[in-house]
Amino acid sequence: MSKNSPVRLALVGAGRIGSNHAELVARHVPGAALVAVADPTPSADRLAADLDVAVVEHSAQALLDRTDVDAVLITTPARTHAELVVAAAAAGKHVFVEKPMAVTLAEADRAIAAADDAGVVLQVGFNRRFAPGWVAARAAIDTGRVGTPQLLRSVTRDPGPFSADPARIPPGTIFLETLIHDFDALCFLNPGARPVRVTALADALIRPDAKAAGHLDTAVVTVEFDNGAIATAEASFSALYGYDVRGEVFGSGGMVTAGDARATDMTYYGPDGIGVDTARRDTDLLRSAYLAEFVAFTEAIRSGTPAPVTGTDARTALSIALAAVRSASTRGPVEVADVLAEVTA
Amino acid sequence: MSKNSPVRLALVGAGRIGSNHAELVARHVPGAALVAVADPTPSADRLAADLDVAVVEHSAQALLDRTDVDAVLITTPARTHAELVVAAAAAGKHVFVEKPMAVTLAEADRAIAAADDAGVVLQVGFNRRFAPGWVAARAAIDTGRVGTPQLLRSVTRDPGPFSADPARIPPGTIFLETLIHDFDALCFLNPGARPVRVTALADALIRPDAKAAGHLDTAVVTVEFDNGAIATAEASFSALYGYDVRGEVFGSGGMVTAGDARATDMTYYGPDGIGVDTARRDTDLLRSAYLAEFVAFTEAIRSGTPAPVTGTDARTALSIALAAVRSASTRGPVEVADVLAEVTA
Amino acid sequence: MSKNSPVRLALVGAGRIGSNHAELVARHVPGAALVAVADPTPSADRLAADLDVAVVEHSAQALLDRTDVDAVLITTPARTHAELVVAAAAAGKHVFVEKPMAVTLAEADRAIAAADDAGVVLQVGFNRRFAPGWVAARAAIDTGRVGTPQLLRSVTRDPGPFSADPARIPPGTIFLETLIHDFDALCFLNPGARPVRVTALADALIRPDAKAAGHLDTAVVTVEFDNGAIATAEASFSALYGYDVRGEVFGSGGMVTAGDARATDMTYYGPDGIGVDTARRDTDLLRSAYLAEFVAFTEAIRSGTPAPVTGTDARTALSIALAAVRSASTRGPVEVADVLAEVTA
Amino acid sequence: MSKNSPVRLALVGAGRIGSNHAELVARHVPGAALVAVADPTPSADRLAADLDVAVVEHSAQALLDRTDVDAVLITTPARTHAELVVAAAAAGKHVFVEKPMAVTLAEADRAIAAADDAGVVLQVGFNRRFAPGWVAARAAIDTGRVGTPQLLRSVTRDPGPFSADPARIPPGTIFLETLIHDFDALCFLNPGARPVRVTALADALIRPDAKAAGHLDTAVVTVEFDNGAIATAEASFSALYGYDVRGEVFGSGGMVTAGDARATDMTYYGPDGIGVDTARRDTDLLRSAYLAEFVAFTEAIRSGTPAPVTGTDARTALSIALAAVRSASTRGPVEVADVLAEVTA
Repeated sequence: MSKNSPVRLALVGAGRIGSNHAELVARHVPGAALVAVADPTPSADRLAADLDVAVVEHSAQALLDRTDVDAVLITTPARTHAELVVAAAAAGKHVFVEKPMAVTLAEADRAIAAADDAGVVLQVGFNRRFAPGWVAARAAIDTGRVGTPQLLRSVTRDPGPFSADPARIPPGTIFLETLIHDFDALCFLNPGARPVRVTALADALIRPDAKAAGHLDTAVVTVEFDNGAIATAEASFSALYGYDVRGEVFGSGGMVTAGDARATDMTYYGPDGIGVDTARRDTDLLRSAYLAEFVAFTEAIRSGTPAPVTGTDARTALSIALAAVRSASTRGPVEVADVLAEVTA
Repeated sequence: MSKNSPVRLALVGAGRIGSNHAELVARHVPGAALVAVADPTPSADRLAADLDVAVVEHSAQALLDRTDVDAVLITTPARTHAELVVAAAAAGKHVFVEKPMAVTLAEADRAIAAADDAGVVLQVGFNRRFAPGWVAARAAIDTGRVGTPQLLRSVTRDPGPFSADPARIPPGTIFLETLIHDFDALCFLNPGARPVRVTALADALIRPDAKAAGHLDTAVVTVEFDNGAIATAEASFSALYGYDVRGEVFGSGGMVTAGDARATDMTYYGPDGIGVDTARRDTDLLRSAYLAEFVAFTEAIRSGTPAPVTGTDARTALSIALAAVRSASTRGPVEVADVLAEVTA
Repeated sequence: MSKNSPVRLALVGAGRIGSNHAELVARHVPGAALVAVADPTPSADRLAADLDVAVVEHSAQALLDRTDVDAVLITTPARTHAELVVAAAAAGKHVFVEKPMAVTLAEADRAIAAADDAGVVLQVGFNRRFAPGWVAARAAIDTGRVGTPQLLRSVTRDPGPFSADPARIPPGTIFLETLIHDFDALCFLNPGARPVRVTALADALIRPDAKAAGHLDTAVVTVEFDNGAIATAEASFSALYGYDVRGEVFGSGGMVTAGDARATDMTYYGPDGIGVDTARRDTDLLRSAYLAEFVAFTEAIRSGTPAPVTGTDARTALSIALAAVRSASTRGPVEVADVLAEVTA
Repeated sequence: MSKNSPVRLALVGAGRIGSNHAELVARHVPGAALVAVADPTPSADRLAADLDVAVVEHSAQALLDRTDVDAVLITTPARTHAELVVAAAAAGKHVFVEKPMAVTLAEADRAIAAADDAGVVLQVGFNRRFAPGWVAARAAIDTGRVGTPQLLRSVTRDPGPFSADPARIPPGTIFLETLIHDFDALCFLNPGARPVRVTALADALIRPDAKAAGHLDTAVVTVEFDNGAIATAEASFSALYGYDVRGEVFGSGGMVTAGDARATDMTYYGPDGIGVDTARRDTDLLRSAYLAEFVAFTEAIRSGTPAPVTGTDARTALSIALAAVRSASTRGPVEVADVLAEVTA
């Protein structure tokens, strides 16, 4: 790897998570350089100034047209991801796209095909796969110490209090954007197994007033896998104690757990008992995971090897999410095969 | 309380758990005396000898006919519980019955009515309610620190490896005898709320060969409550690391967790990392809980106050278990109201 | 063991710790009965009434004169322990004496000799030896997993805020009554090794105004053992977070730690982070240890086997404490052999 | 901060820790560039090649003579540190020097004076000050939640088994190179207080055969501060379970602890109980601390503000270490003032 020719990365989407990613890529990823930022709003200019990035574009296409960009990080709203992946691939750019890669299977297939056709790296932002606890859990599974997974659990709770306007959150978001992490994590922690059947329970417990408009903020989803394992994914939009991400795999040989809400290894003992600070943001709790996924993306580009999280992985997680969306409304189990059959129909 | 007139307790059923309970009652419960043991097998004689109990009977009825017994602990096989409760109440004995109190709602109703009619204390062996972590969790909920419960979890995993003969385990056992603990714990941790709908997934992952005969050894059950809370109960018959009982309540104000598989506060650091011993048996992990429930039972008898866990609590947990049994076969959600309606039909 | 002939125990000293012990012995120790309570104050009557104990004496000797008492628990002020051990042994009573057994070596020797001469069991109240974490730590050491102990630590911090009148606390108390626990624990966790040299640092940091009168409330004592191990014992009279007792043994093969200030396995997650309740009193944190030592004492009496913690153990711990008292004033290391030599001089 | 003009850093000393630091600085510190490596051995060439560093020098002076270097990281053997600080300052370079900055007070004074005279930043590698747990502990102390520190503890145990040749380790190393971290950490965690008196116990417990030659591998040092606090620092050269670094501050208001040997938040539950992996190397356990100190150094240079850990801090820690060296041989307490007085004599 030569510093003389870093991978030239550009960011598309300068919002909260885009800014986080840009900072990591600009400053902390060896062999990578952040060379451009695109966003229709002035946040692009501010972010570029903060990070000494010379090029600012106000449209994604303008950025994709540039010849001095090797790869893009797509951190725009979820519904725009797939079309941007297709456009980026068409422009010959390697692509890191935040989850979800797509919100329909047809979109997902187009995105995957576009990357395949262009021969570019396509990596999806499933950060659990790079978090040290999850990496170690998977390693324990791979060594056989857990045996055959039988019961799995994955939890994502966003830090509260919930203050967003539910009306601005598309229906299905809790499945397609939040639990999609857990669906992928469950597949990652049950290697080789395929999801078969999904049952979802969801409600608007935080903002019951928004339920009539289709807003769901709390959900429990069970996923049955073809190796018999039964998994539970659970999400809430408002954990008052901070960001809470955990995984658990129970198998014929033992159990692994991953995830810890505590912020540091400092513990305070005082008149009210023992206290530990929690991480308030995903970008704090999972910082090393974010960093590792960008390092891996850069390495995949430089080495020509496949991305460690592929479009196919994203499609599998999406198939669970779509089954969950349907199950939440039908109130019964949904076969993943039925969901998959429709796209090919 | 006078030591001169202890509550005279008798044990019905001198198996593993009966022997545990007898030892606790005989030696560690102030104000109680174990005065008789009944079991058709020689284990009654052995246990009585071990504990200096003078009276041995080889039938339950012979024991119930005695006038020198105030109360009975019923620790026979589950299917016999309800009829023994009825008989004991008819004999004017106070009753502590191990879970499940009954395996049908009709039985449950007869047991409750018998105790009511006789004016005896009827307490059911839901030990979580007496475990210090669960007591503290409930106290935190009662103070309002957790807010309204939204997501709950209760786990019971029996220590492995599983070595019983599945053919000798009645169908439905994982719901009626194991998860019944979790169903009650979920109600205990969601005070005032009623279970509405149950969805169960269950399989024979430990002994797949026994599945055809109806044996289920692994299960995940979701329970929806009338306050919107969504709960998950999870069980396995074979945790290689020991007995694993945990609870979690996430609410609008925070979260409480209870349960810890570790055996003591000793930690070992060695060449393989950090190691902690686990409790291998329920009678170790929950010893203080067992003891506390017998202290409470004795107190209820002496003070004339209601038992802290009633036949009605047992009936509620049973209604969830029966809904789970049905859901596991129909593969869809089951309304608790439908299950309850049948008994009155 | 027959319930028909329990060991008849009597309590001498109905203060805080005596009342705790009396309750445990009266209600929770199989094969033991609390038959009498002696104390010059009305607390004897109150305690006896609470526990249904028929006999109250207002002097120790009156109690020792009784023929219906097999053994005594001595929980009077520390300075009176040794003479009461001697008197009890002379009366043919088995003796459980709270730590310290004695505050001078001459006293210790008289107490040991009296028990030996009378052939009675003499057990000293070093409760750490019965706490599950310490028992497990010692077991790990005995299996060789820790290797040769090299660095040890024992901590005792009493719950604060400190509210006693320092003028009523005899000089040397932090060494003779508090750290004596740690000195014994260090010997227990370094089996077979002998203390060689002691260096003590102590101050009045909680009540500096009381220092001139000789009151010390904070101390750090290092103890060098003849196997090379270097140990640290640390005490404070005022831990605002509760009672804090911990042990650590680092050796050539690994490390064990024991002790945990948390009260239960309940954890609360809220807006201020993660919180755990602590045990506020020794009688809560070490309840099972207290109980176990009385069970062991009763068993030693019934079985005729030696006590698990002997007068000789107490003498060893005392020799360290006396060396620490001297070191705290001389500000330099004190040889244990020099302390021991004086008693025989 | 402009990426166009990064701080140009050069490494002096391409050994194990130097290579670690070089990698962090080269790849992960915003606003810094590693532009040169100096070492008399071929390791300089290898490291430079690995990190795409163009300039290799085989003497420190050659590197200091370069005009294209702004600052140096000194990671040579400890005995050479001070003279290199002086030389670097004389050459106008900012200096980050690994601990210890010096091994005599005279050297320390020359190093501090040289940096002052040259107006360059001088930062010393006390990494605990940048570890998240220690930062949080200090923050808790600064808010007053711990009250006045009364009892402190700092532990450093190097991962074992110890395999170095003791003959190649200079006498005093455990104090001057290992415990120097703890001495500084104790000062950091007792802000505003000054060390007064030091008592050291040290031995060759790991390699008793090397003791005659002056090699010490295990030590316990007490440090008394002018605010009354009594601190213990403890070190071993061979912890079989990995790298173990912990801190504890007990005060009038509560306690804080920092440090955790576990490697990730993954926990494994298996037939042998609960297991957690430990970090085997300082460069793993404290990676974020190392990184943070280089970020801080770079920031101090760019902003012209003082280094967060100064030569004066290093001198204070050194004064404790020198007192410990003396105490270990005299077997009694040593006044820090006496040590300090000699340098000015």
